Amino acid sequence: MTKYAPNGTNGTNGTHGAPKLTHPLGPLSGDEIIQSARIIKSVWPGANEFHYKVITLHEPAKTESIPYLAAERAGEATPSIDRRAFVVYSFRGTHNLHEAIANLTTNKIERNVKLGPFTHANADGEELVAVEKFLLAHPDVQAEIAKLKLPTGTELVIDPWIYGSDGVKDKDGKFYDDKRVMQCFLYMRDPHNSGEADSCHYAFPLPISPVVDPAMLELIRIDILPMGLDEKVEPVAPWKPTPPSEYIPEAQPALRTDLKPLHVVQPEGASFTVEPFSELGQLIKWQKWDFKVGFNQREGMVLYDVHYDNRPLFYRLSLSDMAIPYADPRHPYHRKQAFDLGDAGAGIMANNLELGCDCLGSIYYVSGVLPGGDGQPVAMPNVICVHEQDAGILWKHTNYRTNRAVVVRNRELVLQTILTVSNYEYILSFVFNTAGDVVYEARATGILSTSPVDVDLTQAPHPFGTIVHPGVLGAFHQHFFSLRIDPMVGGHGNTVVFDEAVPLPRDPKLNPHGVGYTVQKTELTSSGGYDLDASRNRTFKIINPTTRNPVNNSPVGYKLMIPPMQPILADPDSFHFKRAEFADRSVYVTRFAEGELYAGGLYTNQSRGGTGVRSWAARRDSLAEGNPVVWVQFGINHVPRLEDFPVMPVETLRVMLRPVNFFERNPAIDVPPSRQEENCSVGLNGVEGKVTRLTLGGEEGKLSGCCASHGGV
Amino acid sequence: MTKYAPNGTNGTNGTHGAPKLTHPLGPLSGDEIIQSARIIKSVWPGANEFHYKVITLHEPAKTESIPYLAAERAGEATPSIDRRAFVVYSFRGTHNLHEAIANLTTNKIERNVKLGPFTHANADGEELVAVEKFLLAHPDVQAEIAKLKLPTGTELVIDPWIYGSDGVKDKDGKFYDDKRVMQCFLYMRDPHNSGEADSCHYAFPLPISPVVDPAMLELIRIDILPMGLDEKVEPVAPWKPTPPSEYIPEAQPALRTDLKPLHVVQPEGASFTVEPFSELGQLIKWQKWDFKVGFNQREGMVLYDVHYDNRPLFYRLSLSDMAIPYADPRHPYHRKQAFDLGDAGAGIMANNLELGCDCLGSIYYVSGVLPGGDGQPVAMPNVICVHEQDAGILWKHTNYRTNRAVVVRNRELVLQTILTVSNYEYILSFVFNTAGDVVYEARATGILSTSPVDVDLTQAPHPFGTIVHPGVLGAFHQHFFSLRIDPMVGGHGNTVVFDEAVPLPRDPKLNPHGVGYTVQKTELTSSGGYDLDASRNRTFKIINPTTRNPVNNSPVGYKLMIPPMQPILADPDSFHFKRAEFADRSVYVTRFAEGELYAGGLYTNQSRGGTGVRSWAARRDSLAEGNPVVWVQFGINHVPRLEDFPVMPVETLRVMLRPVNFFERNPAIDVPPSRQEENCSVGLNGVEGKVTRLTLGGEEGKLSGCCASHGGV
Repeated sequence: MTKYAPNGTNGTNGTHGAPKLTHPLGPLSGDEIIQSARIIKSVWPGANEFHYKVITLHEPAKTESIPYLAAERAGEATPSIDRRAFVVYSFRGTHNLHEAIANLTTNKIERNVKLGPFTHANADGEELVAVEKFLLAHPDVQAEIAKLKLPTGTELVIDPWIYGSDGVKDKDGKFYDDKRVMQCFLYMRDPHNSGEADSCHYAFPLPISPVVDPAMLELIRIDILPMGLDEKVEPVAPWKPTPPSEYIPEAQPALRTDLKPLHVVQPEGASFTVEPFSELGQLIKWQKWDFKVGFNQREGMVLYDVHYDNRPLFYRLSLSDMAIPYADPRHPYHRKQAFDLGDAGAGIMANNLELGCDCLGSIYYVSGVLPGGDGQPVAMPNVICVHEQDAGILWKHTNYRTNRAVVVRNRELVLQTILTVSNYEYILSFVFNTAGDVVYEARATGILSTSPVDVDLTQAPHPFGTIVHPGVLGAFHQHFFSLRIDPMVGGHGNTVVFDEAVPLPRDPKLNPHGVGYTVQKTELTSSGGYDLDASRNRTFKIINPTTRNPVNNSPVGYKLMIPPMQPILADPDSFHFKRAEFADRSVYVTRFAEGELYAGGLYTNQSRGGTGVRSWAARRDSLAEGNPVVWVQFGINHVPRLEDFPVMPVETLRVMLRPVNFFERNPAIDVPPSRQEENCSVGLNGVEGKVTRLTLGGEEGKLSGCCASHGGV
Repeated sequence: MTKYAPNGTNGTNGTHGAPKLTHPLGPLSGDEIIQSARIIKSVWPGANEFHYKVITLHEPAKTESIPYLAAERAGEATPSIDRRAFVVYSFRGTHNLHEAIANLTTNKIERNVKLGPFTHANADGEELVAVEKFLLAHPDVQAEIAKLKLPTGTELVIDPWIYGSDGVKDKDGKFYDDKRVMQCFLYMRDPHNSGEADSCHYAFPLPISPVVDPAMLELIRIDILPMGLDEKVEPVAPWKPTPPSEYIPEAQPALRTDLKPLHVVQPEGASFTVEPFSELGQLIKWQKWDFKVGFNQREGMVLYDVHYDNRPLFYRLSLSDMAIPYADPRHPYHRKQAFDLGDAGAGIMANNLELGCDCLGSIYYVSGVLPGGDGQPVAMPNVICVHEQDAGILWKHTNYRTNRAVVVRNRELVLQTILTVSNYEYILSFVFNTAGDVVYEARATGILSTSPVDVDLTQAPHPFGTIVHPGVLGAFHQHFFSLRIDPMVGGHGNTVVFDEAVPLPRDPKLNPHGVGYTVQKTELTSSGGYDLDASRNRTFKIINPTTRNPVNNSPVGYKLMIPPMQPILADPDSFHFKRAEFADRSVYVTRFAEGELYAGGLYTNQSRGGTGVRSWAARRDSLAEGNPVVWVQFGINHVPRLEDFPVMPVETLRVMLRPVNFFERNPAIDVPPSRQEENCSVGLNGVEGKVTRLTLGGEEGKLSGCCASHGGV
């Protein structure tokens, strides 16, 4: 991790030396992180070493933010709003977890409470590293490993996992998870290539699973994993050799040599502008869109105050959490459910996008600053990339009488961030276009979290997973994403409805031929969980009942185009179900309430349920005051296939927010038509009658019209 | 339409002067079209002028093609197969419709039958033009138009429509549609801008709807359209002025000026190769894919003999038909249902992609040759474009211990064609990637087929449509697409199954915590129609039961990822339902039978049903012999919104065919990682501490590493 330099000279967005911009919604600056830690320390004179789990902006109440944003947009004087930080911390070597709110404007603590049993903080990188080191050196762990009789010099690897919950008690009659524990899975690098630090250890899962107290660094027990088709566990036996499965390019027998380069070039630069709205927050403007981008430890990228053509649309857009429950019912897998935001954090796990080649074209990077465990700020360079892309045709019509075609291309603006959560990667994007559409896209890639298996392949397929490699089980699991939409479509005061298309009954006058159908609207009057229903074309919309479109008098609105998902399969009495409160419904709608940002609840690590969106919705609050929050769930039932190993090709999910009678006509009608003079495409068809076999290379293609700077191709 | 020149010098794919390649699956050449017409003529010495509706390849029996393709692939001598043409023709000025098969190898007719009543051929361009001209000049039509009291010089426009069916009889007790008829809708250009040939006439629908016999050019009657909320029809009254709604760019108040160019550049050319496999058919090879592309009058683009890494996958892939039933139950709209392939033809309606700027980057165009009404060949230049594109990241993993990221980008190959069917456009593509995925993508754009309306906007929303502009109703309608998959996954001999994820019951040993789930497979043993079921994660797969993956012993397969659709809402006794045989189920599976190519039946114009995929599936044929055909239906319930007018931004649907245990590991593991040296992205972040407001232009951006030929940006 890069050390933070307060003058922003190390890859942050750099308003170098200028007076620092402040904004109530701007992410905490490095100095504010330092100040927050200092305020906490000041409450504990002489205390032990602090372990900071969370230092993040405590966003102002919406009742304060809304007038602030309105004044800001109008160019008027803005009210003052105190800056506050939300802090979760413990004392190293204890389970003493605290939650605090520090007021940075008054420099005082405003809240500081010890958190009860089975409320546990997120994991962090230093823990993962410390736990791995501790366990690999532990004599009891080494004793089990010795039974495997591995080749000399084999490098072992530990993937620590959030323990989950199951309501099971230990020998003293206490719930195991009153304490903070981690279930750790043991792997090894290719024993015949131990020096390769990037050997894919997921190809070598081992049946030894230590349980550790990461705060006290104590080994609690060692679980041995079941390797058959049922729950029976065999003692650790010598490892049966299996081959590796590497993903690094130099380990492949051969790489393809025939993929020719493809560049995205914007010779006049990009069409968007970026300017800071706070020391770390960025205001982006593009094609009538304007919105603020923040970045924080838990949610990663957050969008605020989204407008199109200065018309309000969304107050706040964010990924609210993810849950990945596993299907293998056998101990200890029955507790295996990751909440990648609550348990870890989309911000803290965000890739530095400069390292690879993650974005193509003309790219702007947004950087962040997050707290380290010691309360010192850590620079997070290039965690969000911003760029344009072309996505084919947006609209076209050809009048067949004249043969005149008008074509407009679909130019998009992409804000992308990538998380690595141990084995898996998630590529998360907001995508805007010129027709008023916003898409939230999630791509799942990276590596399956594998388990050891030893069965006869000619037996029936494994009941709980796919054998993806000799000795390697990819257990079935579900991925759930929850997108939180705090809307202000056409202004504050929104209603959530759904439309359904329903057939009309036969009627001798109106519908004598039985073909008629109409659209029925249902208004959601109270909080609750709702399902999709494709058989009725059920379409959820967020509308503004007091703002009507003059063309047809309908309220302005945005519809939600949501891919269907199989709800969580774990039964309602299970901890998987109780904890993943958002995973049973495609849509939750709640009445806005401060502090209700994370659909799985504030503390997901070893949670018991009861603190997330299902519980909030169960209040059945009236939505009459027009302040709804919409939670859109979507996901994948991941039945692994061989093609997913050793790294899976992306599986992509998209939620689209699309205007419905918000505009008076196609909002992209004023986008200039696609012209060859601007687009500089190259025709590859050779001169007539040339070779039969065309290898479509630069030298044979004809240049249609322009852009000699592309090398005359 | 461009005149065809037999030496291929006019924009066809040009094997200029070389001996003509022949192949049993190659599209009919221009010479073969001429020969087919001559064979027909030879059967009717002294006959009247012929009107050719269809002259297309009559594909050989699969039992002949399969050995041919196998020999071809093995480089062995190929068996001879006769070339045949399928011809549908009538005699001008009569309703005398015939269907014939002409053997071009023996130069003899093999079949020639007169088609019965209510079997009608597709419409064609010359008809549309002739009908419009005839009706606008007809005194009875002019008399009705006069009642509108339009401004002098107003230009009127007729959109002829396929009549559909309704089982209603005329005054002589005969079914109206025993004869070939057309229901024509009247529009006008902006009365204050009549000289603009591309004025959007859909903004000015008029309540006069003539019914015409297009073969005899006789006016049958004039329907007056209902303009209220129910079926009542008022006499034609003076037109109430309403404003225009134009889509042409020069008619817009202002166009955006701030969208900067974006080029896709392949400095070393494209990665695919194209060579003819017949005079008009193209063999495309790209990234281990190889397949043959054909183009015909009805289906447009068809793919044959699709292999990946020389492993068989799909024998034939095609769009089988589309159906667009309308929801307005009132006469005459109750018959309004378009079958864009059967009624018109995806090939004949294909746009010439050179006219606009439809494709971006390095583009190869495939051209076709189709028959004109006179049996002469007509060149169809640039009807399919072929190009690569970048679609973001394909796979990525970062080892958090070393911070080494491996990223591979998702390079795709696109084959795209665009149809204009009067008002609407459909952009249809096959998209391949390096991970063995094939996507069929359909984008709907173009213009709503509008109806006149005159209601008080403050009344309840219109029951059958959206008022998209003053005086303009966009009726609700459904779009259904049917993708026909004739598979040979892993070779011929495939089974169709579906997998579902089902929870396991609690069990004290195996599933004590209620989280377990497993996957159940169901084999389809007989033809039938099947639904999706997201609540069970129902996933249809085509598998090869005799070819097992050595890693986990499962049969190799491909799964179908299908977006859900609302089935056709018209009731089962309606003609909409009876005719659109594919529109009630997401999946149909039939046992392969020759001649079963089009899910709506061979003749859709004024069809009565009974000849399409629902009828074939109802035979409940056994699928045991392993020769299934899978028909995938997907669609949109189009409830128009104001943003859809005057031209709609695309609504996009995708069906993905994705390998499942077909490969032994990620098939894209050997794609070279994404590298800045190859990709030449440009960083837009300015030098640290520079300006606060960044306009991201070429001169401020830094070039990261390479490609000075991009103008030093």
